Amino acid sequence: MTDLEPFRLTGSEALARFRSGELTVTAYAQSLLARIDKRDSAVHAWAYLDPDYVLEQAAKLDAIPSEERGPLHGVAVGVKDIIYTKDMPTQHNSPIYEGDFPALDAGCVRILRNAGALIFGKTHTAQFGATSVCPPTRNPHNQKHSPGGSSSGSAAAVADLHVPISLGTQTGGSTIRPGSYNGIYAFKPTWNTVSRDGAKVFSLILDTIGFYSRSVADLQLLATVFQLEDDKTPEEEGEEPDFRLTGAKFAAVKTAAWPTICKSSIAAFEKGIALLRAHGATVELVDLPTEFDSVLKLHDIEMYSSGRVSFLPEYVSAREKLLPSIAGFVENSNKYTKREAAMALDEMAALRPKFDRFASKYAAVLTPTASDVAPEGATGGNYAFSVTWTSLHVPVVNIPGFKGGEGLPIGLSLIASRYRDEHLLRVCRAVGEVFEAEGGWTRNMP
Amino acid sequence: MTDLEPFRLTGSEALARFRSGELTVTAYAQSLLARIDKRDSAVHAWAYLDPDYVLEQAAKLDAIPSEERGPLHGVAVGVKDIIYTKDMPTQHNSPIYEGDFPALDAGCVRILRNAGALIFGKTHTAQFGATSVCPPTRNPHNQKHSPGGSSSGSAAAVADLHVPISLGTQTGGSTIRPGSYNGIYAFKPTWNTVSRDGAKVFSLILDTIGFYSRSVADLQLLATVFQLEDDKTPEEEGEEPDFRLTGAKFAAVKTAAWPTICKSSIAAFEKGIALLRAHGATVELVDLPTEFDSVLKLHDIEMYSSGRVSFLPEYVSAREKLLPSIAGFVENSNKYTKREAAMALDEMAALRPKFDRFASKYAAVLTPTASDVAPEGATGGNYAFSVTWTSLHVPVVNIPGFKGGEGLPIGLSLIASRYRDEHLLRVCRAVGEVFEAEGGWTRNMP
Repeated sequence: MTDLEPFRLTGSEALARFRSGELTVTAYAQSLLARIDKRDSAVHAWAYLDPDYVLEQAAKLDAIPSEERGPLHGVAVGVKDIIYTKDMPTQHNSPIYEGDFPALDAGCVRILRNAGALIFGKTHTAQFGATSVCPPTRNPHNQKHSPGGSSSGSAAAVADLHVPISLGTQTGGSTIRPGSYNGIYAFKPTWNTVSRDGAKVFSLILDTIGFYSRSVADLQLLATVFQLEDDKTPEEEGEEPDFRLTGAKFAAVKTAAWPTICKSSIAAFEKGIALLRAHGATVELVDLPTEFDSVLKLHDIEMYSSGRVSFLPEYVSAREKLLPSIAGFVENSNKYTKREAAMALDEMAALRPKFDRFASKYAAVLTPTASDVAPEGATGGNYAFSVTWTSLHVPVVNIPGFKGGEGLPIGLSLIASRYRDEHLLRVCRAVGEVFEAEGGWTRNMP
Repeated sequence: MTDLEPFRLTGSEALARFRSGELTVTAYAQSLLARIDKRDSAVHAWAYLDPDYVLEQAAKLDAIPSEERGPLHGVAVGVKDIIYTKDMPTQHNSPIYEGDFPALDAGCVRILRNAGALIFGKTHTAQFGATSVCPPTRNPHNQKHSPGGSSSGSAAAVADLHVPISLGTQTGGSTIRPGSYNGIYAFKPTWNTVSRDGAKVFSLILDTIGFYSRSVADLQLLATVFQLEDDKTPEEEGEEPDFRLTGAKFAAVKTAAWPTICKSSIAAFEKGIALLRAHGATVELVDLPTEFDSVLKLHDIEMYSSGRVSFLPEYVSAREKLLPSIAGFVENSNKYTKREAAMALDEMAALRPKFDRFASKYAAVLTPTASDVAPEGATGGNYAFSVTWTSLHVPVVNIPGFKGGEGLPIGLSLIASRYRDEHLLRVCRAVGEVFEAEGGWTRNMP
């Protein structure tokens, strides 16, 4: 693999080459910039990118003595443009914040930078990460199709080999669903395990920083940097043993979103189940108790009620510059009462320990990531398959590997109970190998 | 009252004078600045204050035609220095952020500014609003004593007549308790009714923006600006009628914090109950069900578990510049597991609707705000009496009016169920009149 063009490398692969001295961060950055130069006029992943500044940062990283280099030394990371960066504008895809440049690093950016990451640029987002109207970003696999939203640019940038890792956020399905649409890994950790300080607030109880990559190894590297440590049982001192599919038990669940599913997603789900079984795992088809059906509605109430508070500052000062759907939150277009807002919070909270108990009986829970492949046009797509897991605060990973309509990629989600992020990634490593090898879709970027 | 020195005016009083043309914002700002100049070398309320810039902003406000003026036109507001302001540094009382100046307005500051408020300066805070080590601020009533923490400067600035209104934050008892120690009104609204975007995160589920003032009318003005609207029952179309003490029913509760109470607070509590009864209200002495006793512990688990995540960015990049207690969060000095973190969130959530049902039977719930008057030295003081209400997300107001040991002020809290902020303020207006007139303490600032 040493003759791979640098832009094709995963983060872990690039790191290995930096360590061995085969590759400098500068040469790596040049390769990524050339890739972006060639492709971004079609993909439109980037809201802000300053090639000279990127190269300047790369040179600084190259100058760090090898023994002082961080665990992400030189790895390029794209940042969704609702997350503040001290050295780049943060514009939220909103005319209110056009050219806005608060010199502030979000907590997650500070951690990445401290670990040596090369913060590459800002990726396109739906306005404030809070609408179904997508930014100009297109799906790299077929530019008539959406990359999904709201983390559109971050997903497309990783899928199109502009950067190996990027940051998204999820309030509904904004990290996980674009992962499926773009054929990449997407990881929404347990809520409140990664600091969301310095990311624009939509819903405090739902918003979660998420990660994109093209390998589980990269997600595991990020989990280490962000200290996503599971509780250890006494037997697990140190670490859980390598996860093996043979003999493992999975649940396959359809959820209340099932009536919205299309045939590509049904086919992927069935194939995923068959592949797990073919590799020695048990897969139980399970219906969640009907009380979980309410989550779709509870999520809607919570998101709208929080949006009413979160966008009031922009509404009172610059209503005419907001998309109608954002103004609609503040105007309470769905007519939810405060009593309903409290009830939604309480009922979602009551379901969390129940799901944890269910999920803890399995290695992981398998479910469709999205209802279909990426839709045509500039829509974020249906997020019904994601909101249950966002509301329940559980970690979710989209695993790519399946082929849907028009040859577009499609993924499946694996879910664990809260605070089992490390465990979930171990499971995903084994499952991802199988799905990527045998699911029927291959990442063949030109 | 027209001959009152301007710095003594409440926000509502100043507004009336701006409207009538009796007072300009410039003359008002000059009066406040002179007051601060005379007093702040002893009180140390301000972390950042630029008199020239204040006067420049005041002149701009005076230049606005009267028909275009906002509902807070010219009212001076102090901002706790963990809340971002686009035109002033935000330093979190941390050497890591010394001189840091991200050009960003927190959501609450944007709303205040849009309403015409004169953002006056940044007030001293405990480091990140997250330690019991106070900033240099002293209690204006006796400078050997603490102003309370962590919103120390905001509370002292309002008590010492530097500004009529200021912003605090509360994660444990950081808004409410300094209200009692300084003899002013303090209002922690229902969680997630005021945008906390742009305030440093400590705990997402606990952090709440709060307000200080010297009158309930000012709090009601703020409630209007922040659109803290209760659900209206069909009978209440428009507005609930004026609240009258006669015939109203209150609960008086002691909570699990009671073993920490001292005699000043017991005396204030007893006097408050007697005053309500003397004015025709019924007061029932009620013990909350014992399940609420667990909140002290649940709050501790949640705050420490969230602190572990929230301060990781500073810890990994500048551990040596953190107070040991902040580093202790990240190092999980209390050894809480992730399982306990999830359990604490779930159990706090389960208690919220139970308390709402209890509180909705009363006009409001009366309880001590703090265990005692302001302690000597640079400690924030005991927050055990506040954490229940922070955890339950309910609105709380500290009402001043009582006198404790060494003649220091002491207050009582009134509490309502979630999303009854407007109702609670109406009750507080009536109760505050009585407590301030007959409680035994008078605000006699030199």
